[in-house]
Amino acid sequence: MGDLIGSVVDSELYYIPQPEFGRVRSLNGAREDVVALYADMARLNALYMIARAGSGHIGSSFSALDILSRLYIAEMAGDDLFFSSKGHDAPGLYAVLIGLGRLPEDKLHVLRRLNGLPGHPDVSIDGLATNTGSLGMGISKAKGMLMADQLAGRRRRIFVMTGDGELQEGQIWESLLSVPKAIAGRLTVVVDHNKFQSDFSVERTSSLGDLVAKFAAFGWHVVRADGHDPQALAKTFAELSAIDDKPKVFIADTVKGKGVSFMEGTSIDSDVEMFRYHSGAPKADEYRRAVEEIEARLSRLAAAAGAGAIAVRRTDRPAVVPMPAESVRLFPAYTEALLAAAGRHPELIALDADLSLDMGLLPFKEKYPERFVECGIAEQDMVSRAGGMALAGALPVVHSFSCFLSTRPNEQIFNNATERTRIVYVGGLSGVLPAGPGHSHQSVREISAVGGIPNLVMAEPCCPEEVGPLLDWCLAYDGPSFLRLASIPFVTAAKLPAGYVPKLGTGVTLRSGAEAAIVTSGLVGVAQALAAAELLAGAGRSVGVVHLPWLNRVDADWIAGLAAEVPALITLDNHFRAGGQGQYVLAALAAANVARMPRCLQIGLEDVPPCGRNDEVLREIGLDAAGLAARIGRFLDGAQAPR
Amino acid sequence: MGDLIGSVVDSELYYIPQPEFGRVRSLNGAREDVVALYADMARLNALYMIARAGSGHIGSSFSALDILSRLYIAEMAGDDLFFSSKGHDAPGLYAVLIGLGRLPEDKLHVLRRLNGLPGHPDVSIDGLATNTGSLGMGISKAKGMLMADQLAGRRRRIFVMTGDGELQEGQIWESLLSVPKAIAGRLTVVVDHNKFQSDFSVERTSSLGDLVAKFAAFGWHVVRADGHDPQALAKTFAELSAIDDKPKVFIADTVKGKGVSFMEGTSIDSDVEMFRYHSGAPKADEYRRAVEEIEARLSRLAAAAGAGAIAVRRTDRPAVVPMPAESVRLFPAYTEALLAAAGRHPELIALDADLSLDMGLLPFKEKYPERFVECGIAEQDMVSRAGGMALAGALPVVHSFSCFLSTRPNEQIFNNATERTRIVYVGGLSGVLPAGPGHSHQSVREISAVGGIPNLVMAEPCCPEEVGPLLDWCLAYDGPSFLRLASIPFVTAAKLPAGYVPKLGTGVTLRSGAEAAIVTSGLVGVAQALAAAELLAGAGRSVGVVHLPWLNRVDADWIAGLAAEVPALITLDNHFRAGGQGQYVLAALAAANVARMPRCLQIGLEDVPPCGRNDEVLREIGLDAAGLAARIGRFLDGAQAPR
Repeated sequence: MGDLIGSVVDSELYYIPQPEFGRVRSLNGAREDVVALYADMARLNALYMIARAGSGHIGSSFSALDILSRLYIAEMAGDDLFFSSKGHDAPGLYAVLIGLGRLPEDKLHVLRRLNGLPGHPDVSIDGLATNTGSLGMGISKAKGMLMADQLAGRRRRIFVMTGDGELQEGQIWESLLSVPKAIAGRLTVVVDHNKFQSDFSVERTSSLGDLVAKFAAFGWHVVRADGHDPQALAKTFAELSAIDDKPKVFIADTVKGKGVSFMEGTSIDSDVEMFRYHSGAPKADEYRRAVEEIEARLSRLAAAAGAGAIAVRRTDRPAVVPMPAESVRLFPAYTEALLAAAGRHPELIALDADLSLDMGLLPFKEKYPERFVECGIAEQDMVSRAGGMALAGALPVVHSFSCFLSTRPNEQIFNNATERTRIVYVGGLSGVLPAGPGHSHQSVREISAVGGIPNLVMAEPCCPEEVGPLLDWCLAYDGPSFLRLASIPFVTAAKLPAGYVPKLGTGVTLRSGAEAAIVTSGLVGVAQALAAAELLAGAGRSVGVVHLPWLNRVDADWIAGLAAEVPALITLDNHFRAGGQGQYVLAALAAANVARMPRCLQIGLEDVPPCGRNDEVLREIGLDAAGLAARIGRFLDGAQAPR
Repeated sequence: MGDLIGSVVDSELYYIPQPEFGRVRSLNGAREDVVALYADMARLNALYMIARAGSGHIGSSFSALDILSRLYIAEMAGDDLFFSSKGHDAPGLYAVLIGLGRLPEDKLHVLRRLNGLPGHPDVSIDGLATNTGSLGMGISKAKGMLMADQLAGRRRRIFVMTGDGELQEGQIWESLLSVPKAIAGRLTVVVDHNKFQSDFSVERTSSLGDLVAKFAAFGWHVVRADGHDPQALAKTFAELSAIDDKPKVFIADTVKGKGVSFMEGTSIDSDVEMFRYHSGAPKADEYRRAVEEIEARLSRLAAAAGAGAIAVRRTDRPAVVPMPAESVRLFPAYTEALLAAAGRHPELIALDADLSLDMGLLPFKEKYPERFVECGIAEQDMVSRAGGMALAGALPVVHSFSCFLSTRPNEQIFNNATERTRIVYVGGLSGVLPAGPGHSHQSVREISAVGGIPNLVMAEPCCPEEVGPLLDWCLAYDGPSFLRLASIPFVTAAKLPAGYVPKLGTGVTLRSGAEAAIVTSGLVGVAQALAAAELLAGAGRSVGVVHLPWLNRVDADWIAGLAAEVPALITLDNHFRAGGQGQYVLAALAAANVARMPRCLQIGLEDVPPCGRNDEVLREIGLDAAGLAARIGRFLDGAQAPR
């Protein structure tokens, strides 16, 4: 037990103020001692940020922090640049940058908040060089920066941190293959080799084999060393700094969750257990125990560095708004439907890209281990594997977050479609919520990205009850399909009519309205439309809500029929307006050549979605119930009268 | 000079009939002699197919043929499967399959024709296991097939051929990393290491370094040997066949264009010269000389194998419909505009992915070598490099064929867009024409694939005169843009009005019409619309043509103004209807809430585009002038009257 704080209590949070970092940085003791102390101070602050935000990547921040500390306070000089390709370690990096005064101290309190610090890096934040969070792009970006430097006569060095799971991405190897000679010596990659990826150990997910041999075979100068030992870090960077004719990689052996014993990857049996501190915040008692551990060590490290006591500030833990009891989730229903389908279809194979927990696949994996294929963070390989399986008579169901699944293997999905096989793609984390991880994970482009693939049908359920019927529809459809699923728990008034059966291209009226119909889809879209309609009803407006589960198919007769019923039609997309469902609906309506055209309004995202708390972001982009009701009210008031 | 044909003349084409292959296969001589003979017979037929079609990949077919011959007549048994991941070698494979009787002999005459043999493989053709042509997917597909086999209790072996340039694709390394143990021994990859890719040598484009070390580091059993010597082939496959606990790769040293001295890659100085026989047909005299060479060797090989004389059939060379003299091309104008822009923008950097000839970049490369970046077949790396360059103050212009550029680095383009930098993406080979290469290269999905990326503006010029203004618009636009360019020479009546200046979201009327306006874009779309309007005028119909160069932006006032002028509006996409420009136009029209809605018709591709001669394919999909005129005429006749 340390003496910086005294008693640590569950109702409080603790952080180290910025000036303390400045004081420590200017100490005259051995650099290695200062680096170790600075890293642990940043650990406490990263933990603070994540605990306060309620989510964030502890494990990856902690494994990276000794390296970040070494780089920022003892290695980089002048214009030298660091960025993290994995980006999941953002809280750790923020803590380091705040300590350096490159970000103001008050940013400590606004992780994952609107206009605060985004869940993954964004160049709008001082000190962040590039947008990351989607994996595998960092080395390519660094090469581009160095080539532009070369043309402009600049000669800075760039340090890029990657994850180890991230090395499963093909782009990494693409980027390693070709490093122009002229810039090679200015590029250093540090692999935060913490042995765990999202769900399980790297070894178990998709083994990297002999990493040193791999990098060496690609022509890189490779060093492998301890990524936490301050002496080893000093020695390694000194060695790398002397090499100037080759690109360099430091494979840093690290521990995921380093610095808090019960969060450390080495403390679990990686063959059977999951790493529990990948992206969630610790519980209050876990936070307390972690602070106690870090604090005890800080006292020792401060003494070793001759720093004296480190000041720690305490704040009350902000009250957490509890999840409403009536929130519903789609994934339990998905898991159940998939298991049922697997029982009926012995040829069904589930593929996953390192998101088996998030995608609800653990029960499937347990029940049908021989039909579960973990591909690692390798979406292109996964989708083309599925293509091969389908050609060989299997029924592949392919899983990842929508943001990745609809974009990374985009050409592979098209290629499979040209073979006219049956493949179901299931995308989770769809839509603008949760808004905490930021734009790399907020999937608001998948209708546009894959909706135009020939014969591919996209569908999105509005409530748990609709998940099974839509999955079954997809499994029965003779072609490719994409099931778009929201991952957040959400309160919805959606209730499907008794005996509801999905019918391609047609929607279902969930609320009647005389003045207008909102056509929308999905858990969030329908819930917000119903809530807005309710608000409008309170203001004397009669607005209906139609759920159209089909994202890229609109039946001409159905839309013509709907148009005949209402004088106005509003499309609402939990997606970019451009290329979204509303565009399919309005184009189909125009081409239906109805006798009387309703007045139309198309609502959807117009720009990169902001990061923040869910309620903040919905309000910011006008998709909260009040904002929607107000906008629709103005529209109905005739603000946009016929020309 | 051989004695099979006698005199070879320029006005004829020559092929070996199917029964001759059967006769050779059943010879009792040494298998190696038979393999060599069979391969050269297939060479003559592949050359015949390409000469007859007027295009096709000679170099890659010829380098692969000794291996294909060995595999099909001496190695594979039972259900064993071969496919080519590169797919460019399709004519060689077709020739082998026709020899085996797995495809009928008359297919020799219909390469790249409608309902014939597609330019790249398609599973609709007997003997073809998967659709390839886009690179890097083959090993993943084979893994998927073997895993489905495993589940179903099948135990066939799969042989996958890759190119060497293809190894620059990240998916290759993604797929090499994770081969499940249970299937490993049944997977053999053969690298047709012919040292040349599309434009230049692999070494010069993006060196592969030590390939043996690379594959070995990824855990594969590697053998490197001569890919033409029949003895070496026999020995190598025997060695590989004995390995059953690891995936296996045979790096086959081959010669691009092998078998015709002046087409062989080794005959050119790869440091300075391009390989000239990548994808075009030989000229008549080149064909004659090639036949003479092959024929001479066939006589010797037939004697060695104890085969007696090989019968060769001669046919008249089909008359080639000459390209109309008034055809125009966009790429010379693009090259000129890019050079002019480079003069004004010292920070402009052009990036390319192994298509510098096709993308009109050779003059740029010559004039600005330090600002030309050849990335190899590595589109993800290229796009993220461009992202890094833009962050570092450069102005990147990124080139590839649209089919690849809009899909392979789809997430990378989005990621760059979230950084709000200025990057110009330039896609060539856009649209359904040329139709010879097949669906992997017919780009009819890019508006859908990237049109929804926030702030990204897509534009397509209708004539050479518009290329410069649109490129300049893109270079001046403060965000990402995508310039969609048709690559084929085409006849068009398009003439821009004097003083034309592109204005975002607004179109330009190229032909007036009282009854309807066709809204379309691009060289082919506008040309076909104008031709259809002319035919309709001949039938007494007054139909106008509006060129809207903006593919994903429609100005609300402009479309409302257009709607006020005409009673009917037809959108025409050289793209899938779903997600195409017409959808943007019709949705914008619906949301413009005009006083009088015109009747609307949306025309575009509805399914995977067929492969064939350009005129055949346009007719097949209804985009020929007569088909369009007929369809529009029926629409105007009221066949689709208001409901």
